[in-house]
Amino acid sequence: MKVFIIGSGNVAFSLGQAIFRAGHEICGVYGRSIEKALLLSKKLHCKYFEELNTIPKNCDVYLLAVSDDAIAHLSAKIPQTKGVIAHTSGTTPLSSLGKITDTGVFYPVQTIKNNFPRSFKKIPFCLEGSNERSLKKLMELAGSISNELYQLNSKQRMILHLSAVFTNNFNNHLLSIARDLLRHYHLPDQLLIELARATVINAFEGEPYSSQTGPAVRNDVKTIDKHLEMLKKHPGRQQIYRQLTDDIINVHNNKKK
Amino acid sequence: MKVFIIGSGNVAFSLGQAIFRAGHEICGVYGRSIEKALLLSKKLHCKYFEELNTIPKNCDVYLLAVSDDAIAHLSAKIPQTKGVIAHTSGTTPLSSLGKITDTGVFYPVQTIKNNFPRSFKKIPFCLEGSNERSLKKLMELAGSISNELYQLNSKQRMILHLSAVFTNNFNNHLLSIARDLLRHYHLPDQLLIELARATVINAFEGEPYSSQTGPAVRNDVKTIDKHLEMLKKHPGRQQIYRQLTDDIINVHNNKKK
Repeated sequence: MKVFIIGSGNVAFSLGQAIFRAGHEICGVYGRSIEKALLLSKKLHCKYFEELNTIPKNCDVYLLAVSDDAIAHLSAKIPQTKGVIAHTSGTTPLSSLGKITDTGVFYPVQTIKNNFPRSFKKIPFCLEGSNERSLKKLMELAGSISNELYQLNSKQRMILHLSAVFTNNFNNHLLSIARDLLRHYHLPDQLLIELARATVINAFEGEPYSSQTGPAVRNDVKTIDKHLEMLKKHPGRQQIYRQLTDDIINVHNNKKK
Repeated sequence: MKVFIIGSGNVAFSLGQAIFRAGHEICGVYGRSIEKALLLSKKLHCKYFEELNTIPKNCDVYLLAVSDDAIAHLSAKIPQTKGVIAHTSGTTPLSSLGKITDTGVFYPVQTIKNNFPRSFKKIPFCLEGSNERSLKKLMELAGSISNELYQLNSKQRMILHLSAVFTNNFNNHLLSIARDLLRHYHLPDQLLIELARATVINAFEGEPYSSQTGPAVRNDVKTIDKHLEMLKKHPGRQQIYRQLTDDIINVHNNKKK
């Protein structure tokens, strides 16, 4: 397929390279940051475009790998083509691409950073199309870089994105707090790695609800108070501890009733 | 070594069996729940004791795998022996074992459930002893079931336990919320598994602080408001979302300054 990349951030780099490696032809790159877009165009052996109105019109897919706020604005600037214009955002509805006929969504459920993930093979792709033709093209493109394809509508994708914030962003923040505590007391990270891994494995192999352990679910007020006292120099962390503990107690007590 | 097991919960079952499999002799089991303690004693090919004052005095280690609240009370009831009396708790100080000469702590950093973990080989054991002799015995016992031995004092262990609450209990609760959201909308768990795994790998391979992504760290108020609105039927979850988001924004803004 012929693919045009709009964007020059982590998602554009990561997806662009995966699509290129899968054997597709990258017709060009457009990006707000000239320096990064030029670098990406070199990696993808293609031309860099400074203006959206000059980009080739014969591509199959125009991938809008840009920040949520820029999607509507940029999609409106793409000249009329026969290709599908698809964004890569978890939270932005398909409708934000406006009245263009062939539009879609091409959302990988992964936190994308420089050089991560190295492969998209196991990464779920959530696809949506304004019509069968668009969806089919996006399925074909996604299928060439991943084995996990899902067709989700905008509402479902928004729920998934919210779940992903709990799964990734919030858990990452908690792990950041946990590591900080260890380091402050000169304890090695190694102490927590297996526990963190097992947490994820257990949560998806069994039921995270019924596998809850710890002071909150036991309503062990003595330990909870000791922990809150230990966190008193960090009101933010203390509040997080309190909130999560309260919710665990509430949820588990209510279900027991 | 000769080991006596006090307790009949998940930790007693799990550690008892690992120690037995490692070739040690289990001298007996004592547990509040007669039924469970009997079952454990059968699995460990040893005698079950109904009263602590009748248990053998020639064991090397007496493992108190009981709830935190029961440690002080039970340890006081153990007859004077030459063995080490060690508890398995993360939050209980060594001193709670009272004035017995040879005491210690034998704390595995893992969430222990029925049949999990299947092996302790990679599980960190945090050991403490009231004297060199006690510590040495516990090191030897732990070393026969795990390759990860650490010597931690009671203060360090308490910090580690607090970090473990963030790493396991709280993350498990967040994953439980995430799965609940998916299920409510008939979306498969599969959508989040790779993301959850990557979160842990990234957090320990790199720096969780600098690898933070998502609406909070971008201060993307539009998405945050949309998410809060989606959570309005669950005030507890909404509060957790707000608290974690606020803390991510605070922490990242402060460091940028």
